[in-house]
Amino acid sequence: MWMNSGIAAAEGDLVLLMGQRQNYHLIPLIKDGEFQTHRGILYHNDLIGKRWGSKVLSHKGNPFYLLQPGIEEIIHTTKRNTQIMYAKDIGYLLLKMNIVNGATMIEAGTGSGSLTQVIAAVIGENGHLFSYETRDEMQNLARKNLRRIGLEDRVTFINKNIEQGFDQENIQSLFLDLPNPYDYISLVQQALVPGGFFGSILPTMNQVVKLLTALRRHAFVNIEVSEIMLRHYQAEESKLRPADRMVAHTGYLIFARSTNPISHE
Amino acid sequence: MWMNSGIAAAEGDLVLLMGQRQNYHLIPLIKDGEFQTHRGILYHNDLIGKRWGSKVLSHKGNPFYLLQPGIEEIIHTTKRNTQIMYAKDIGYLLLKMNIVNGATMIEAGTGSGSLTQVIAAVIGENGHLFSYETRDEMQNLARKNLRRIGLEDRVTFINKNIEQGFDQENIQSLFLDLPNPYDYISLVQQALVPGGFFGSILPTMNQVVKLLTALRRHAFVNIEVSEIMLRHYQAEESKLRPADRMVAHTGYLIFARSTNPISHE
Amino acid sequence: MWMNSGIAAAEGDLVLLMGQRQNYHLIPLIKDGEFQTHRGILYHNDLIGKRWGSKVLSHKGNPFYLLQPGIEEIIHTTKRNTQIMYAKDIGYLLLKMNIVNGATMIEAGTGSGSLTQVIAAVIGENGHLFSYETRDEMQNLARKNLRRIGLEDRVTFINKNIEQGFDQENIQSLFLDLPNPYDYISLVQQALVPGGFFGSILPTMNQVVKLLTALRRHAFVNIEVSEIMLRHYQAEESKLRPADRMVAHTGYLIFARSTNPISHE
Amino acid sequence: MWMNSGIAAAEGDLVLLMGQRQNYHLIPLIKDGEFQTHRGILYHNDLIGKRWGSKVLSHKGNPFYLLQPGIEEIIHTTKRNTQIMYAKDIGYLLLKMNIVNGATMIEAGTGSGSLTQVIAAVIGENGHLFSYETRDEMQNLARKNLRRIGLEDRVTFINKNIEQGFDQENIQSLFLDLPNPYDYISLVQQALVPGGFFGSILPTMNQVVKLLTALRRHAFVNIEVSEIMLRHYQAEESKLRPADRMVAHTGYLIFARSTNPISHE
Repeated sequence: MWMNSGIAAAEGDLVLLMGQRQNYHLIPLIKDGEFQTHRGILYHNDLIGKRWGSKVLSHKGNPFYLLQPGIEEIIHTTKRNTQIMYAKDIGYLLLKMNIVNGATMIEAGTGSGSLTQVIAAVIGENGHLFSYETRDEMQNLARKNLRRIGLEDRVTFINKNIEQGFDQENIQSLFLDLPNPYDYISLVQQALVPGGFFGSILPTMNQVVKLLTALRRHAFVNIEVSEIMLRHYQAEESKLRPADRMVAHTGYLIFARSTNPISHE
Repeated sequence: MWMNSGIAAAEGDLVLLMGQRQNYHLIPLIKDGEFQTHRGILYHNDLIGKRWGSKVLSHKGNPFYLLQPGIEEIIHTTKRNTQIMYAKDIGYLLLKMNIVNGATMIEAGTGSGSLTQVIAAVIGENGHLFSYETRDEMQNLARKNLRRIGLEDRVTFINKNIEQGFDQENIQSLFLDLPNPYDYISLVQQALVPGGFFGSILPTMNQVVKLLTALRRHAFVNIEVSEIMLRHYQAEESKLRPADRMVAHTGYLIFARSTNPISHE
Repeated sequence: MWMNSGIAAAEGDLVLLMGQRQNYHLIPLIKDGEFQTHRGILYHNDLIGKRWGSKVLSHKGNPFYLLQPGIEEIIHTTKRNTQIMYAKDIGYLLLKMNIVNGATMIEAGTGSGSLTQVIAAVIGENGHLFSYETRDEMQNLARKNLRRIGLEDRVTFINKNIEQGFDQENIQSLFLDLPNPYDYISLVQQALVPGGFFGSILPTMNQVVKLLTALRRHAFVNIEVSEIMLRHYQAEESKLRPADRMVAHTGYLIFARSTNPISHE
Repeated sequence: MWMNSGIAAAEGDLVLLMGQRQNYHLIPLIKDGEFQTHRGILYHNDLIGKRWGSKVLSHKGNPFYLLQPGIEEIIHTTKRNTQIMYAKDIGYLLLKMNIVNGATMIEAGTGSGSLTQVIAAVIGENGHLFSYETRDEMQNLARKNLRRIGLEDRVTFINKNIEQGFDQENIQSLFLDLPNPYDYISLVQQALVPGGFFGSILPTMNQVVKLLTALRRHAFVNIEVSEIMLRHYQAEESKLRPADRMVAHTGYLIFARSTNPISHE
């Protein structure tokens, strides 16, 4: 399972094996299993029962730390067919779209399901996510990724083109990760509770211009366009400096609140 | 209450009144209440029963939108005596420290309680936060801020100097928002479950150097130093451009994982 | 004069008086002159003959340093009616547009003449700048600013709307600081030597889109769009950290090279 | 020669051949010469006499543009053994250190000579640069790079360790590109005219702290620490967006003004 509450790794647990150069391996512990890395083999039976945070050695003597994976490491190691969202953007999105315990929301499209997993982890059992995707193979991948962390009950996957409208109403927040969100704003308005939270991420300025136009036309308010840059540092106390290179752009984030159309008359 | 699940505002609800220039007002709806702004008076009785997202007018005819406040707007309007953490940093921190539904964690110090509120909103009823603060007036303010959103059950406020150690053990994650986190790393290690998540935010490079030294000495691994910049755009489709000015620095974020000290022998 | 080559200030020199909080005052030294600041009076006769870099005191005892102004301080203290260009952008522009000793170039419009002054300082006596501006009062201000540093011989001010075309041909580089540079690209091509350097600065993305379209239509090559961010740090060795706030946006810089239209046939 | 003033390429000219994917080739035109690229051969005789900005074809039919190289392209294609300075940093440095026509200055160390070339191009014939370097092979490379653009008269290369002091006095500006500039500040003070311009670039925060301490001890004023970030955009009018990745860090820039030590007594 993901995040057992004990102090030691148990059979079936999802574990993070972290090598010396910050190289990650995320695996479920299986009785008699073996995990092969280019730094040597780790035997699952040696790991089962070991305290979290322990240093373990491969058969070649290379050290690994036995850790529970956090949600950021989960999405970092998610199998993907598509561009996935980054932690820097997802984190800000959670706050801006009020994705907290108990939230009910829609996302489209699902993609590889990295945002899906974070939302599922945050909303808890009394929240729910409806996740739309037209491509079967993406949906299957996302479902598999979600099952890995045991949170499939919190998400309903829907295989449907949102051009036909959303199946839900009075949803609290709705996120579109699609190239043309501006084509669906009228449908978004129907699915959201009045005053609901809308969000999107778009790579180009041209798309942002179109989305702003569509949001304005449908009387969305509190519109925000922003971008988030994450800069890593070399974590060396005697040579503290930023890393040489960084991701310069993932996408522009757009947030807005729907309004009650009746009140405008 | 905060975030009612209906489609209209009810007595007792926490509401966000948003004026035309993105000016926020956050108030609880009280029968026969009046809310005075410099753009005119709004009568609570006119708001109670109105659908979320409605446009309402002050007695001077100035428009406001009636919205439910999201967690970002909650912390934005939190009464504060201190520098508070920004949404850009909190969001990333949630993912890096695995603060999700069900998490048990420690923060010190509480400050005005802006991070406290976000954590409480995310961890849900089966999670718990222990929040340390030595200053009475800060703790009272944070408690009041938390009560406003009805989440006081999820947090235990502790009035104690952490020099004397933490009262908990096997905590999953621990965040220090203090000027000298490097003095407490040994105590952090005792409070965290082996392999637990540690985080801190520090304004100066000199402090980061000291913290890195302390973390290394106590065998923390997976150490990350990073900073997050948020750039807002003017959300005008015909004049799309970044805002003129921005926050250049809030703090350096430091994350690390504790290890099992026994395994190092 | 500006930048005398001696070691002491002389009558007629342009001097920078720098107070303790990095507050600048830029004045010409005049016999028997007095300079009043809110920190006290400085008598010019006390400054004339004093070595550069000396600490001098106002009649109230407040310290100032007597310095020669560098070109960056010159433009920082330039009297302006308009938004002026920033050193971060001008510096990069010099390299991208090959503005070096001996260059002949055009700029339009002149504005308050901050870029004008830097170009004049760099190109030397064997270079020349033709500076177009339609507003008389701006041109007079720019001329006055340029005269202050004694470089008026290097610039020809032209009061003419560039819609009517440029008076020069075979110019090496041409910079447009106007809201609608995309309307003049055909004229730019006629003024530039084939293969010449073109540059512009624009605040909005919408303008950049239009300029790119115009440059492509006129077969400009090597097109670059970029932006430069400058982050200042608090220069305290025990509390090294970025300043709290920064300029988030001055403009997008666009550079391109003209081509020989005949060779495309 | 570099930057002929005519409209066509001549024998002996330094030319930039720019292919379709912004790939640069910088070569001198030699009678009967051939230039081989993986996109085909270009015959120099076909280029000599051709107008600047012309499109020329390799023997395989691949197009190149015939351009004069600007100073930015010169340093971009400079042969290097070392990390070189970037245009974004050099440009700002020119303004902050008052490197304009007629300036006399010192740099140490020379390295591959990229800054050397820009300074030489800017200061003109009535300025002069003294460039210190201890490594013979670096100095030879820098001299060769400078000769390529015909500016060797403006620079005196000095093969000497600056621990022994600078040979010049009353220099207007002095730039140190060395790992330990803080060890030479007393010598810098002796070489600079009182009130002169000092600058340095350093990769780590730890070095910045040491340099600030040294500058303060020697009564330098107007100390500035800053960093410059350059973000490139994809120059496509229908898909305008930042490039995916960028250089996150080259170095911290530090600038200061020396003072007259006598006046402090």
